[in-house]
Amino acid sequence: MKARVTVTLKNGVLDPQGKAIAGALAGLGHDGVTDIRQGKVFDIDLAETDEATARARLEAMCEALLANTVVEDYRIDLG
Amino acid sequence: MKARVTVTLKNGVLDPQGKAIAGALAGLGHDGVTDIRQGKVFDIDLAETDEATARARLEAMCEALLANTVVEDYRIDLG
Repeated sequence: MKARVTVTLKNGVLDPQGKAIAGALAGLGHDGVTDIRQGKVFDIDLAETDEATARARLEAMCEALLANTVVEDYRIDLG
Repeated sequence: MKARVTVTLKNGVLDPQGKAIAGALAGLGHDGVTDIRQGKVFDIDLAETDEATARARLEAMCEALLANTVVEDYRIDLG
């Protein structure tokens, strides 16, 4: 089963990387960007075929390693 | 207008970061992961309100800075 896990910073958490990218885009002449925030995406192939079990396993992986839940949110899409 | 740009490695491009994450997950007891590939996601706020213009601008940003199109694919979702 394939899954995509998207990890993004929580609202209110500063994103200096995003600010740097916005600055670089402005420097390259790409105006009109009012905000940009960078996150991570993980495309995962699982041996598990049951959707509920796969989701539970992915949640455990997010809590353990893929996301820092103090400052990041994660979203799991199966399919 | 809000947009999400997802940048992923092209098929066939080695992903040592993904391999390291898979190894770390296995070391933490999370079995059953057959493959994992890491990508980037950018959540962008644009001043532009026209969808076609916004998409064209985002494509230009991807080609210029956000993606390395030699080894990466990008996908633009507006909404």
